[in-house]
Amino acid sequence: MTLSVGILIFQGFEVLDVFGPVELLATYPEHFEITMVAEQRGAIRSAQGPSCIAEEAIGDGRPYDMILVPGGQGTRTQVGNPAVMRWLQTQAVQAQWVTSVCTGSALLAKAGLLDGRKATSNKMSFKWVASQGPEVNWDYGARWVEDGNILTSSGVSAGMDMTLGLIANLHGEKAAEDAALWAEYSWHRDAATDPFAGAWENLHPA
Amino acid sequence: MTLSVGILIFQGFEVLDVFGPVELLATYPEHFEITMVAEQRGAIRSAQGPSCIAEEAIGDGRPYDMILVPGGQGTRTQVGNPAVMRWLQTQAVQAQWVTSVCTGSALLAKAGLLDGRKATSNKMSFKWVASQGPEVNWDYGARWVEDGNILTSSGVSAGMDMTLGLIANLHGEKAAEDAALWAEYSWHRDAATDPFAGAWENLHPA
Repeated sequence: MTLSVGILIFQGFEVLDVFGPVELLATYPEHFEITMVAEQRGAIRSAQGPSCIAEEAIGDGRPYDMILVPGGQGTRTQVGNPAVMRWLQTQAVQAQWVTSVCTGSALLAKAGLLDGRKATSNKMSFKWVASQGPEVNWDYGARWVEDGNILTSSGVSAGMDMTLGLIANLHGEKAAEDAALWAEYSWHRDAATDPFAGAWENLHPA
Repeated sequence: MTLSVGILIFQGFEVLDVFGPVELLATYPEHFEITMVAEQRGAIRSAQGPSCIAEEAIGDGRPYDMILVPGGQGTRTQVGNPAVMRWLQTQAVQAQWVTSVCTGSALLAKAGLLDGRKATSNKMSFKWVASQGPEVNWDYGARWVEDGNILTSSGVSAGMDMTLGLIANLHGEKAAEDAALWAEYSWHRDAATDPFAGAWENLHPA
């Protein structure tokens, strides 16, 4: 079975949050059909500068089997975007998997999708993200968190580790290892432990 | 000083070859000004499906301080594209840095830019890449290779390691470490040793 994957992009999305997971999912086109979706179709400028194309609009109302929400400085604006909040809430009702990378978890939290759930986000912006979801059981130290059908990851590259974890869930460890090998990526397999949590704590002691 | 960085994209480019380095270079907008360039301006479809925008065309003739050439299945076509070959040769005359990721080194090799130089490429397609440059000193085991002002890397994620190596050269180890920390990426610092070289050898013994 092929899962339709809707990847939300918006002005100021983080490129690696999107294209790390895309690289790995696309190893298996028979399993994952990837579509970039945004509030408006067309070119969407990333936080890093380059623009990518949204082929579908959230207003189209297409339901996806899986959604992926990246982070990036644009999340600061999107938490206040009612159209995006409604789209997330509508998708979450029927999607098999709801996933986010980095500060993308702030959007899931603000939409209320993480209430009563365990979740994580990137370390640098953790306080701001956590403030978007006071009813969430935030796990600061995790590389990624799976709670039911919702997966949230720590910062940027952690999205690749989470994606490999999802591939392993769905298609076995060997499929995840092969995807990592194809991308010559060293998979952090331990979801519970983010090697960067300590680094940020040292830089920015509480 | 800000380096202008021209990133070549073409139909069938590999997304992580491009956006891994972009993510890291964009940590320092004061040092790197990134432009996506292609044979034609506009939307260019990646090997993984999503399309990105080329803001400039190679026919514009703009010289870049640094060029980056990604891999992807599209390189099979581009080695036979005279316009791209001429662009690479022209850029190489004046660019301070010429860099490639994965099978992007096949394009540099075919353009003659690697003759007499040491270079590497990704492990899975190594034989095909090496056949594009019989006068190149190919280093199968390297994660990335620096020979003068030309840097070539192994497959996909190795482009991030090479980019961090370049940032370290230009702005010091601390700047590279900070970029890796920002992206929560575990840098393979050892350019001479690709941890995946052995994996491919075991899968596809010579």
